[in-house]
Formats: sequence, structure tokens, C-alpha cells
Amino acid sequence: MIKQQVLRIETSGRGTYELSGEIQSAVRGSGISAGICHVFIRHTSASLMLCENADPAVMRDLETFMSRQAPDGDPMFTHTAEGPDDMPAHVRSILTQSDLNIPVVDGRCALGTWQGVYLWEHRHRGHHRSVVLTIQGE
Amino acid sequence: MIKQQVLRIETSGRGTYELSGEIQSAVRGSGISAGICHVFIRHTSASLMLCENADPAVMRDLETFMSRQAPDGDPMFTHTAEGPDDMPAHVRSILTQSDLNIPVVDGRCALGTWQGVYLWEHRHRGHHRSVVLTIQGE
Amino acid sequence: MIKQQVLRIETSGRGTYELSGEIQSAVRGSGISAGICHVFIRHTSASLMLCENADPAVMRDLETFMSRQAPDGDPMFTHTAEGPDDMPAHVRSILTQSDLNIPVVDGRCALGTWQGVYLWEHRHRGHHRSVVLTIQGE
Repeated sequence: MIKQQVLRIETSGRGTYELSGEIQSAVRGSGISAGICHVFIRHTSASLMLCENADPAVMRDLETFMSRQAPDGDPMFTHTAEGPDDMPAHVRSILTQSDLNIPVVDGRCALGTWQGVYLWEHRHRGHHRSVVLTIQGE
Repeated sequence: MIKQQVLRIETSGRGTYELSGEIQSAVRGSGISAGICHVFIRHTSASLMLCENADPAVMRDLETFMSRQAPDGDPMFTHTAEGPDDMPAHVRSILTQSDLNIPVVDGRCALGTWQGVYLWEHRHRGHHRSVVLTIQGE
Repeated sequence: MIKQQVLRIETSGRGTYELSGEIQSAVRGSGISAGICHVFIRHTSASLMLCENADPAVMRDLETFMSRQAPDGDPMFTHTAEGPDDMPAHVRSILTQSDLNIPVVDGRCALGTWQGVYLWEHRHRGHHRSVVLTIQGE
């Protein structure tokens, strides 16, 4: 059995947006009890991440880390058509994930206790982001 | 339904090679209209990436970025049996992807407008690369 | 057909632990001959990696690389509740993988000759880690 649906997320700029609740409820609604939930972001300047879901400092530290890895406006970047955060957004995307798969066990995503699913917006301006869920199983 | 096939790619050395066309045509040929297309590279010194497909400067900037992250010949690396680009190739591979999943919707990979699928060769010398496609769905 | 099982891994602290053998034997036991084997780690301070399986120097060099990317105790990190390796472990996890998919061909994971599947423990202390396998196919 396969169920697909699209999540629309309006971001308000750089930062993380938790999707765990929407994904769990799509899985519940699918009627699938064992299988895989695939999460796919249709963009190259925002990405997906499985990360610690308890302490907001983790997200702040990840921003700090990424801003050192690929600083906005770094002169090593020549692809700057959309501004100083254009190329850093692509770099952050390739260092994280565009797609994730989560096992479905007993009708739920079998996330660990401390695991949350996040969309990470890498552009400073807010964007409309679309995420395709495909739930496949029995 | 499951369809599998192997793509053979001859690289001419470090750089990116777009696979989107071959993947879309394998999906079309599979007769599967809803599901997942899995792309897997059977190597540890070349990798896969979903990235911006319009401006070639993006690929050049990604090369620049990676050559700063893991410079060829960096003395921190001891695994140098195959030369100064041996260990950097493994590092670049683990920082990007060995496998990708793309949703199949209406008989096509539902890539975003600006998303392309790339094989990234990390060795300076050309190599024969093999990529396994598994298309699963209805 | 879908088969799921959980692997329990006791780590003895930071380092890599090869899972290829256990995964191959779960695939053999599943009776599935064509499809996908999904590997998922239910933690955010340990991760998964497909990497070169022949020379132990590769793993040592990857540790060196990561310890420069995200040094233990780096003052840029504020999430330090569990010690100096707490936030570096999350960073190492998001730079590598929480889930992997491997094609199953002729009843075996179609890994390349030099590819091994590794759990990478990022904490200095040993941990109980749980990895969910989902094998889907025909």
C-alpha cells in the first residue's frame, strides 16, 4: 500500500521548523502499520534533519556551527545572484539531508525518544516550502 | 512492483555528472506511477547529491568549499595509499550521500524545479562508477 | 513483503562498529530477493555511515577530520549539559547519516566491494544503541 501527500510549510526565514507532529499524523491517517515513511524536500536551499528535540540550544549551536562552515558573504563563493546567503544555503543543504526515511512500526514512526524531524530553512527570507511524504507498507 | 537496473557512468575525473535524465527515463520505463526511486552508488570515493541545476557556478563553489574542508594532501590524513586525493575522497563521500530516495508521483520523479541528481566524482582520475536504481511502487 | 527487526549494539565509546555482517544476515533471513534494506538509528549522538572497509587508517582519519570540524569543548557550543562531547556528537550526527537504504539484489545487500556499513558512536562513554532494519521487497 502507498499513500502520498504534500506538506506545505511557510518559513519565516533561517531556522528550524519541527515536522514530527505532522508526519506522525500523516502516518496514523495512512492506515499503514509496518513500513517506511519517506520525507522529501523539493528545494536546494532548505533541508531536512533528524535531531535532538529537547533543548533549543542545540538548534542555536547548529546555526553557529553552520555559519562558521559556510559564512554568508564568504568571498570563496561566486554564486551570489540571490545575495550573500544564496550559496551558503546550498552548502548547508548538501551537508544535511534532502530526504529521510523513518521506519513505521505499529502504525507510528519509530523515532527515538530524543529524535525530532526538522525542516531547516537556510535563507534569511521566509519561503514557501513543499515536502512530499510517501508512506509505503502493509 | 519492483524494478531494478544498474547505470554505468564513466567519469573523467573530479567533478559532477548529472543523472536526472537517466533516472527519469528509468522511472518512465518502469511503469510505476506512485512510489519511490532509490539511487545507490557502490563506491566510497564518489557520492550522490541533490543540488541546484541551473547555474554552473554552484558546482564550482561546491568544489571550492570541499577543497577547503578536506584539502588534497592535508598532513592530517594518513590513508594515502592511492595518493593525495584518496582520503579527501572518502571524507567528501561521507559528508554527502551514498544513497538518495526520490518520490515517484504520476510516473515521474517529483523533483523540485531547481533540483538535479548528481554523481560527484571525488578522485582526480576518471573511474567506472556503478549506480543501482530500485523503483518500488504501484 | 516487509520484515522488520531491531539490532542492539553495545558501544564502548567513540569509534566505528561495523554492521555489514548482521545486516547481510538479516537480509538473508528475510527471504526477500529484490528490494531495499533500510537501516535507521534511533539516536542523535551516534550515526550511520557507508565507508571504505579495508584500511583501519580510514576510520582514524575520519575521527581526526571530525575532531577538527567539531572539537570537543569548543566554546562556540552552549549545549554542554552532558559534557564537552555532547554538542560535537550532534554535529557529527547531522553531518553523516541517521538512515541508509541499501538495494537488495539476489537476496543480498548489493554493497560495493569496498563498502561497509558502520555505526559511528560519537560519545566518549559506551552506549546502548538501537538500529531498526526494515526490509521491503519481493
